[in-house]
Amino acid sequence: MSVNAPLNRKLRMGLIGGGQGSFIGRVHATAGILDNRAELVAGALSSDPVKAKASAPDYDIPADRAYTSYQEMAEKEAKLPADKRIDFVSVATPNHTHFEISKCFAEAGFNVICDKPLTFDLKQAEELAAIVKKTGVVFGVSHNYTGYPLVRQAREMVRNGELGEINAIRAFYIQGWLRTKLEADSQKQAAWRTDPSKSGAAGCFGDIATHAYNLGRFITGLIPDQISCHLKSFVEGRALDDYGTAVIKFTNGALGTVTASQISHGRENEAWIEIDGTKGSLEWHQEEPNKMLYRVNGKPHQIYTRAGGPYLSALSSASSRLPSGHPEAFFEAFANIYSSVYDDIVKRATGKPFDGAASIYPNVMDGVDGMNFITQSVASSQQNGAWLSLKHPLCRS
Amino acid sequence: MSVNAPLNRKLRMGLIGGGQGSFIGRVHATAGILDNRAELVAGALSSDPVKAKASAPDYDIPADRAYTSYQEMAEKEAKLPADKRIDFVSVATPNHTHFEISKCFAEAGFNVICDKPLTFDLKQAEELAAIVKKTGVVFGVSHNYTGYPLVRQAREMVRNGELGEINAIRAFYIQGWLRTKLEADSQKQAAWRTDPSKSGAAGCFGDIATHAYNLGRFITGLIPDQISCHLKSFVEGRALDDYGTAVIKFTNGALGTVTASQISHGRENEAWIEIDGTKGSLEWHQEEPNKMLYRVNGKPHQIYTRAGGPYLSALSSASSRLPSGHPEAFFEAFANIYSSVYDDIVKRATGKPFDGAASIYPNVMDGVDGMNFITQSVASSQQNGAWLSLKHPLCRS
Amino acid sequence: MSVNAPLNRKLRMGLIGGGQGSFIGRVHATAGILDNRAELVAGALSSDPVKAKASAPDYDIPADRAYTSYQEMAEKEAKLPADKRIDFVSVATPNHTHFEISKCFAEAGFNVICDKPLTFDLKQAEELAAIVKKTGVVFGVSHNYTGYPLVRQAREMVRNGELGEINAIRAFYIQGWLRTKLEADSQKQAAWRTDPSKSGAAGCFGDIATHAYNLGRFITGLIPDQISCHLKSFVEGRALDDYGTAVIKFTNGALGTVTASQISHGRENEAWIEIDGTKGSLEWHQEEPNKMLYRVNGKPHQIYTRAGGPYLSALSSASSRLPSGHPEAFFEAFANIYSSVYDDIVKRATGKPFDGAASIYPNVMDGVDGMNFITQSVASSQQNGAWLSLKHPLCRS
Amino acid sequence: MSVNAPLNRKLRMGLIGGGQGSFIGRVHATAGILDNRAELVAGALSSDPVKAKASAPDYDIPADRAYTSYQEMAEKEAKLPADKRIDFVSVATPNHTHFEISKCFAEAGFNVICDKPLTFDLKQAEELAAIVKKTGVVFGVSHNYTGYPLVRQAREMVRNGELGEINAIRAFYIQGWLRTKLEADSQKQAAWRTDPSKSGAAGCFGDIATHAYNLGRFITGLIPDQISCHLKSFVEGRALDDYGTAVIKFTNGALGTVTASQISHGRENEAWIEIDGTKGSLEWHQEEPNKMLYRVNGKPHQIYTRAGGPYLSALSSASSRLPSGHPEAFFEAFANIYSSVYDDIVKRATGKPFDGAASIYPNVMDGVDGMNFITQSVASSQQNGAWLSLKHPLCRS
Repeated sequence: MSVNAPLNRKLRMGLIGGGQGSFIGRVHATAGILDNRAELVAGALSSDPVKAKASAPDYDIPADRAYTSYQEMAEKEAKLPADKRIDFVSVATPNHTHFEISKCFAEAGFNVICDKPLTFDLKQAEELAAIVKKTGVVFGVSHNYTGYPLVRQAREMVRNGELGEINAIRAFYIQGWLRTKLEADSQKQAAWRTDPSKSGAAGCFGDIATHAYNLGRFITGLIPDQISCHLKSFVEGRALDDYGTAVIKFTNGALGTVTASQISHGRENEAWIEIDGTKGSLEWHQEEPNKMLYRVNGKPHQIYTRAGGPYLSALSSASSRLPSGHPEAFFEAFANIYSSVYDDIVKRATGKPFDGAASIYPNVMDGVDGMNFITQSVASSQQNGAWLSLKHPLCRS
Repeated sequence: MSVNAPLNRKLRMGLIGGGQGSFIGRVHATAGILDNRAELVAGALSSDPVKAKASAPDYDIPADRAYTSYQEMAEKEAKLPADKRIDFVSVATPNHTHFEISKCFAEAGFNVICDKPLTFDLKQAEELAAIVKKTGVVFGVSHNYTGYPLVRQAREMVRNGELGEINAIRAFYIQGWLRTKLEADSQKQAAWRTDPSKSGAAGCFGDIATHAYNLGRFITGLIPDQISCHLKSFVEGRALDDYGTAVIKFTNGALGTVTASQISHGRENEAWIEIDGTKGSLEWHQEEPNKMLYRVNGKPHQIYTRAGGPYLSALSSASSRLPSGHPEAFFEAFANIYSSVYDDIVKRATGKPFDGAASIYPNVMDGVDGMNFITQSVASSQQNGAWLSLKHPLCRS
Repeated sequence: MSVNAPLNRKLRMGLIGGGQGSFIGRVHATAGILDNRAELVAGALSSDPVKAKASAPDYDIPADRAYTSYQEMAEKEAKLPADKRIDFVSVATPNHTHFEISKCFAEAGFNVICDKPLTFDLKQAEELAAIVKKTGVVFGVSHNYTGYPLVRQAREMVRNGELGEINAIRAFYIQGWLRTKLEADSQKQAAWRTDPSKSGAAGCFGDIATHAYNLGRFITGLIPDQISCHLKSFVEGRALDDYGTAVIKFTNGALGTVTASQISHGRENEAWIEIDGTKGSLEWHQEEPNKMLYRVNGKPHQIYTRAGGPYLSALSSASSRLPSGHPEAFFEAFANIYSSVYDDIVKRATGKPFDGAASIYPNVMDGVDGMNFITQSVASSQQNGAWLSLKHPLCRS
Repeated sequence: MSVNAPLNRKLRMGLIGGGQGSFIGRVHATAGILDNRAELVAGALSSDPVKAKASAPDYDIPADRAYTSYQEMAEKEAKLPADKRIDFVSVATPNHTHFEISKCFAEAGFNVICDKPLTFDLKQAEELAAIVKKTGVVFGVSHNYTGYPLVRQAREMVRNGELGEINAIRAFYIQGWLRTKLEADSQKQAAWRTDPSKSGAAGCFGDIATHAYNLGRFITGLIPDQISCHLKSFVEGRALDDYGTAVIKFTNGALGTVTASQISHGRENEAWIEIDGTKGSLEWHQEEPNKMLYRVNGKPHQIYTRAGGPYLSALSSASSRLPSGHPEAFFEAFANIYSSVYDDIVKRATGKPFDGAASIYPNVMDGVDGMNFITQSVASSQQNGAWLSLKHPLCRS
């Protein structure tokens, strides 16, 4: 069996973003090739043409496919012969550019993997969803935590009824790196994330609370009804929120909370989730992703481990590369998203049907969901926590 | 030096509640004598006179001081000679009786240690505060988590400025034991806690969220301004909340959250708190009380351990009985509250001044604080999370 | 039911040792009264008569029963009327005095709880075992870790076959407090423990490795066959070992290791044990005593928690005082040893039969076992790890 | 800067082993390309020619470079033009073939990364060391745990004197997967590892204890003097050890223990190490590789985290790809070994000097060290734990 049967070749990946000082661009590049199912062959690595060219050798991208803009790349790649041109593009740029780039490539018929949050605002997200539908391209969004084998396990446990009816979700994403005003020092990662013209309406809630929210949605499948949110900007002079907490009512009566921080000293990347059902509860922490707690009253607590045994679902087991106990981590989860997207890209390339709307990987509908969450969080906070609708017709249900 | 210098004798303890099937009565009895500073000599152990008598041998209380009611006890103890009568009474009964019992003993001049929440409703709490003030008795409330050596350490670190300005508090108390409708089986602990006529206006929020709230107040000293709360009763047919979450605005601009559950499968007694300051952050979990995390960006995380060394405050060190590494736990923390109350009882008994309003142990003002928190939580929840005032003139500030 | 039915009164406890600067004397006093089944009424608290008297008020021991020597105490207490005199004595003195004190009280008919290691050398231990047998007194040894509810659970799981045949035991006791030469500063705890004339033939291996060894024996019931040991004294000028490791062959073919250290920086009191059977494995850590791991290949790891549910044995459940999640710790485990000894003391006092040789609490046979372990460890180490017999006819089998 | 400046191209990797059912072959392939510094272009993936061919598409290796034997591969690759032929070969086959394959490629001038243990027996290892020296090829051995950023940090802390003089090392590798006789079911991984004709003289001690031993050597640099070892085969009918423990005397007087198991139920891949120095101690666990404990008496314990801040050494920081809190794991550590080897391969390819004998990656000397450890462990065990020399002139000192 080939790496991409029946296509029988590696996929060709293009990268937008990822120039010097970038964090997430390198992550996409690494995740994309981790399983040797793709190779990185082209890129527009920076909005600065000089830097775009200069960064190419870092990725071993040949000079003739190191483009000075995404527009150039879309145009020139489209003209390459079918056995040369990229199969998909990964968009790893600041938020405000996601829409135009994704739109450009999707309309040119290229598959897209876009970083989160999907766009600058909800309207763009809705428009992008329509474009994806119309063009029929494969479209993934890198809510990477859903790629962890035990997160996928959690989702299936909920679906199998092992938790019973879900009553409560507590989702968190606690960081500390923006405790000081790094943006004042032109630290690249901090600068755009705290700039409303680049990040969008939210800071902390756009960058990380969306992950926590998405995680709860992915695992439980509960449908959100209303949200009440309180955002704060604790670092003086910061334009966007760096802390916040939201309460969510789900349509089945469950209560959810999403809490996120960028100002908690020494907290590195503590995304975690706790889910309470009538039959059992789950707890999973991103910083120790190879285990998950499943608890039932009166019984020993159970630690599920990645690849731990036949008690795991087929999907969860297949999302692992190593025997249990050899830890897997962030890149592998990210690569699992890529791998699932690749499955659909191969289907599309070989003329087979695929249902992007029901994908295991986060798709454009989840991207819209995230943008709706951001939009309503900010609006509720501006109204001192007023309950606002969190329903959106384009999201999964 | 004697156990209670300069009084030079053990204190004499009376117990209200604690009859068969009781949980917290036994805890008070154990904590009260743990350091050999007191002996249990009298009790009215049940509201059922027969059971009250029958339970006395379990505590080695002599028959002639095993009273059939608290009223009888207060009356007869008051008539005993000074070198016989109890020094204080511990009130370990369901909430709706706290007020009348505490009032009765305080007005008879006895010192009181009352379980939490202080009373059935806020009005009673306010009245009790006035009585305590008028009578001058020593009055403690068993918010026992404040007795942990590392919680006291946390408080002093905040006061010393080691955390800087406090921006955020996240306090939790997650349990699972009321996941099923135990009250339908007449389980004693469940029955009164879920009965509005005995527990008061709140279930979960009265029983455990108050502890979490109190912990945040104790450690940070922040003054609450407003609260928005959402309570749920997930177990069908339950009259009181078994889940809830509240957002609190403090007067300094900090944001707090208090989340409590009694319906989270397999979660035993997970009270924990996370505190974010401009200079550092803290994290402490009641189930592993002998360690606390202190984090500062860019530095190794620090694990403070109970009795771990000279880096701890004098009070924290003095609140330990064992060298570090030999774990101390729930009883010892409870006993620390008792011990601090004893210090004031000895002062009062030997005619020395004491400032009950500034005590390290939770006092009647903290009891009022807790009742105000419960009252406003329930009211806010009934108004769909409306912001209500959380200021109260009788609380510490 | 009384605290000590059918005796129907508290037991009267005497204490040898525990004067100022003592650690373990206070622990015995606290554990002895924790459940209100006994009261401390007499003591010979120091070998220094002045200090012995001066320390009495710390324990609220009346002056007339604060003796200046254990001999005086044994003699005078024996002459007190039966309803006054102590029921038992706790021996909490340096090792070299255990034998003479225990012998004195046992021969006077008093029950004894002696600290570990049992005696100064093996010969004394053997002699003491004979005295206990002859006199018929109740005799406990404070290998306190066996009192933890989950350690008792472990023992019963092995006996029930839940682990299958035991193949391997790894027992550890890692501390750091003797990293520097504290004895040079006359630190009381360090001084006698590192003095061969007081501690006996071993330092670290006598003080703590014995606990680790005992824990393995208690849980598994395996019979030791041979030992090979290597002891080191890393702190310059120290007369006794402060580090060591031993390999033990058990008669069933299992392999055990015991490793102990007093020179591991910052390690507080890390006693832990790992046990491998053909059907399952166990892991328990003294610093987090309220949980234990039970693992079986291919299944989720199981966390057993103290008082966690009906899956626990009756003995384990009965060894708890609090609901699960409210942590219990060192004192409670110690008190469980006391409580089990009390059961036998009550039996003896009321003329009922008891089988001290089969007790759940560590008895004089376990004390001999420990002394034999120390003796052979030191001898093997002196012969560069030669295999020596670890069988002893007076130990449990 | 290119991925491999000044070579300015990806390295070309060949793989021996890795056919269907393989574990470690896929790991080498993944680690080799993780940083996009190399591409996998050729392979002899199985000793079965049919399987070797059939496995090639899984790695996207073109048919013309999917060889049916390593001999064919060495011969044909050597004849390819310099800009086509592989730069190095990774040897991921059972132990008994390591020598002949490595020898073949080294003598043909190819650089080699060989899995551990280096060879079938010590004699082969010594011979291979001579060949490497003579040919001047770059030669790495995949003791992959030394690639973890915090393990590298530990090594540098020892070298910087932050731990003082090292007194004790406790190294462990505990697994459970061979608890049952998997080899009887022809499970591929189990079959060769338990077959003396393929695995060599040791089972468990060759497969995993070598890692634990190597970890201690890598971090501390201590020179071993003597070893006493006890090996067991607990699974009936198994030809090689599946459990064992060794005591090691180092030349500076330090005492080490190495304990390894393949029969501990549910233990997945628990390699960990504890190191005691006169100034501080370290503890690191492979299953949670992103943190390490550094402890000093009387101070808060410190948790070092991967990429946690400027307190880490330059090498440790450079060995990370992600910000702290985004976990890295097994593949990344493996890739760090690759990356360090690549640095030397690039140097050799561009005519620059490199000192393979002083490499940060495990080299052929470390491979000899491991084989010597295995040889002397087995010999000592066969002599009931006799002390044997563990010095070897070809190892690092």
